Amino acid sequence: MIELNFSNMMTEVLGEKGISERQIEALRDRVDKAHHEIVQKRWAELAFMDLVRQDTGEIRKTAEWVRKNAEDFLIFGIGGSALGPRSILEALSPFHNLKRRPRVFIYDNVDPRTLSAILSLVDVKKSIANVITKSGSTAETMASFMVIWDELSRAMGNDAGGRVIATTDPEKGNLRTIARDKGFRTLSIPPGVVGRYSVLSPVGLLLAEVIGIDAKEMLRGAADINDRCSEPEIWKNPAYLFGTLLYLMDKEEKRNISVMIPYADGLKYLSEWFSQLWAESLGKLGMGMTPYPSLGTVDQHSQLQLWMEGPEDKVFIFMRVLDFGADIRIPEVFKDMEGIGYLGGHLLSELIKAEEESTELALTKNKRPNMTIHVPSLDAYHIGQLFQFFEIATAFTGFLYGVNPFNQPGVEEGKNFTYGMMGKKGFDQRREEVEKAREKKVCYRL
Amino acid sequence: MIELNFSNMMTEVLGEKGISERQIEALRDRVDKAHHEIVQKRWAELAFMDLVRQDTGEIRKTAEWVRKNAEDFLIFGIGGSALGPRSILEALSPFHNLKRRPRVFIYDNVDPRTLSAILSLVDVKKSIANVITKSGSTAETMASFMVIWDELSRAMGNDAGGRVIATTDPEKGNLRTIARDKGFRTLSIPPGVVGRYSVLSPVGLLLAEVIGIDAKEMLRGAADINDRCSEPEIWKNPAYLFGTLLYLMDKEEKRNISVMIPYADGLKYLSEWFSQLWAESLGKLGMGMTPYPSLGTVDQHSQLQLWMEGPEDKVFIFMRVLDFGADIRIPEVFKDMEGIGYLGGHLLSELIKAEEESTELALTKNKRPNMTIHVPSLDAYHIGQLFQFFEIATAFTGFLYGVNPFNQPGVEEGKNFTYGMMGKKGFDQRREEVEKAREKKVCYRL
Repeated sequence: MIELNFSNMMTEVLGEKGISERQIEALRDRVDKAHHEIVQKRWAELAFMDLVRQDTGEIRKTAEWVRKNAEDFLIFGIGGSALGPRSILEALSPFHNLKRRPRVFIYDNVDPRTLSAILSLVDVKKSIANVITKSGSTAETMASFMVIWDELSRAMGNDAGGRVIATTDPEKGNLRTIARDKGFRTLSIPPGVVGRYSVLSPVGLLLAEVIGIDAKEMLRGAADINDRCSEPEIWKNPAYLFGTLLYLMDKEEKRNISVMIPYADGLKYLSEWFSQLWAESLGKLGMGMTPYPSLGTVDQHSQLQLWMEGPEDKVFIFMRVLDFGADIRIPEVFKDMEGIGYLGGHLLSELIKAEEESTELALTKNKRPNMTIHVPSLDAYHIGQLFQFFEIATAFTGFLYGVNPFNQPGVEEGKNFTYGMMGKKGFDQRREEVEKAREKKVCYRL
Repeated sequence: MIELNFSNMMTEVLGEKGISERQIEALRDRVDKAHHEIVQKRWAELAFMDLVRQDTGEIRKTAEWVRKNAEDFLIFGIGGSALGPRSILEALSPFHNLKRRPRVFIYDNVDPRTLSAILSLVDVKKSIANVITKSGSTAETMASFMVIWDELSRAMGNDAGGRVIATTDPEKGNLRTIARDKGFRTLSIPPGVVGRYSVLSPVGLLLAEVIGIDAKEMLRGAADINDRCSEPEIWKNPAYLFGTLLYLMDKEEKRNISVMIPYADGLKYLSEWFSQLWAESLGKLGMGMTPYPSLGTVDQHSQLQLWMEGPEDKVFIFMRVLDFGADIRIPEVFKDMEGIGYLGGHLLSELIKAEEESTELALTKNKRPNMTIHVPSLDAYHIGQLFQFFEIATAFTGFLYGVNPFNQPGVEEGKNFTYGMMGKKGFDQRREEVEKAREKKVCYRL
């Protein structure tokens, strides 16, 4: 089971820069209310908690078919539909494309150079495409899907539909219609489950099974977190404490940045996945902390200077992996050189853990609040735990802030301008607005 | 030539949320002083500006030898020694390891799983290792180098030294000593050039030449920026304006986060490189903005909600690429579907540019300050320009803040704890301090 150590958030360690038990107790009513929002399940979007009970039979069957029939597996999706699968891939199958088949390409942009490169690398006839969009009309995803669909159709004629898996709403949307029409295989994203809470639906689990990860193990981890974090008493519920401490650091201590620093290359993308979850769920009504995805030890040589001596505007979330599943002993060479000889004989895992602990302590001495999540090992079970832990904590924290943690109204404006510029019906005025802004802008340019 | 459009930072567009010409004029004395710091060259660390005049003959010769003799090129470095090479690799040779030889592995951590994976992928006898550390004793770099050196020695005996290139100080340090002793090839980092300003030294240029990029073209771009940004008049100097506007947004408008959003996959790592440069140079004495590396269109589906409706604590730096060097037309399929049919017939490059402009405009309408850097194309010349532009802007901004933009005193404390735990001579007290902190910490754990 993952564990949360939050000593370095508290006044006992940090003095006045820390959170006191009294501050937490004073929030008890809000915490109870947030807890009730969760257990009463009036929010359809809490359906993500029920994903632990899904039948993974269809996912597993589809994945077996992919493994047998594809040299390359191409995922088209953006936001949660890409960050979820990518965080599974990087956490559980490092250097995948150099080691295993099918290779996996996750295309989550509309960068023409990237898509050209992918098309030059794969033989579409030997590829299977998984297009993931719940609404079925996400512009970036559908644009790139249209490109690959055209390539497939040219190469395979009427058999093209047999190379596509659509992961989308069970009933509605353009992609569902196309899938029916062209005979795609399909997997459904349950109605209540929104993008950034969808990693443990077919969105992430198909990729998991394709690369040989047991989806059931991930769900078992998530289910254990559901149990662990259903405790109403805040002092016994790590997800609630995690959210409450960050909420207090933001609201009462005016720290607007939460830095997540896994000490494991494989968790870098999980920390990017968390950044979407946290930012999009809580960033509204003028509120929200900015989640910063970082990586140890790497960012000790990039960001640590700012963390230590910059403004007191941050909280740090360390992640320490206990068992890397592989280890290497640093050989006892250059013993006589004082500057490096001491390294010989130690394990790399010792060094990375020592660095994590040292950075934690250095920040603590400078009164910079931090907490640490202990991850026993990088396997399906514990990655499933991490996903579920952060999702429950985020939904809970949304209720603490008093915002809807499941919507994202702020992204519509930009979409509408794009529709205008791309000639979508009914958006002419938006195009004119863009053109006017363009004229105005030329004044300041160097 | 790259261009800076800063209209959306100004009161003319943003009203009271913008910067006025008056605010900039009021800073004129500080700007002049910062300019003089740069032109008088009393800071040895301004040597990065002279890199444009270096002779690249030795680098090119070494790279040719690598291309002829290596199937895999392994870089060991951390901080600037990794972020610099990686940003060149990703900007100028996408999907490199699936397309070209020698493959490039940049190892910038002490994660045992990652290094084990690399060792299982390469044949050390057919690899060449480039170990990069100016001091010659960076713990992470030297630990992993010791591992690879041991592997090489076992495999090749006395010939092992012939497979290593050391990029380090011309005279001093453990790595220089080892290189002499074992007969490594060497390249020198000029004495004044510090890590995060070193990408256009052999640190980045060797990798560039190894992957077939003309180092001279990068330096030509940098030299043109040196000229362009030597102008003392702030209104004519884009590097000074870039720095001044961000400085004012931080100091006077209380915005503590600067988000960099290139709309091009290839610039994602350049934005991580910038994040080190900006954070480590300016984050001291309680000051410094937090640089956030982002990516468009991807983060429209991850961070945009927070940017639009979250707290007013951010400034946005867009990067728009004009020519991607490749393009794809979205086919006119699904014409009758209103939700996606409008996409058909457009180029992907049109779509990505429309999204960039739309996001810019949406943020501007919400009075969120932003500026845009126009990058004509992703080639050696313009990537060289970007590096030099940001380096000059950062050094200048450091002088505006009144801090030393070249040191990083805040990282020592954490290093010393690590030394203690790893048994380095003279650091016993630090080990004891870690052990004491450990006991204290167990109190809050879930």
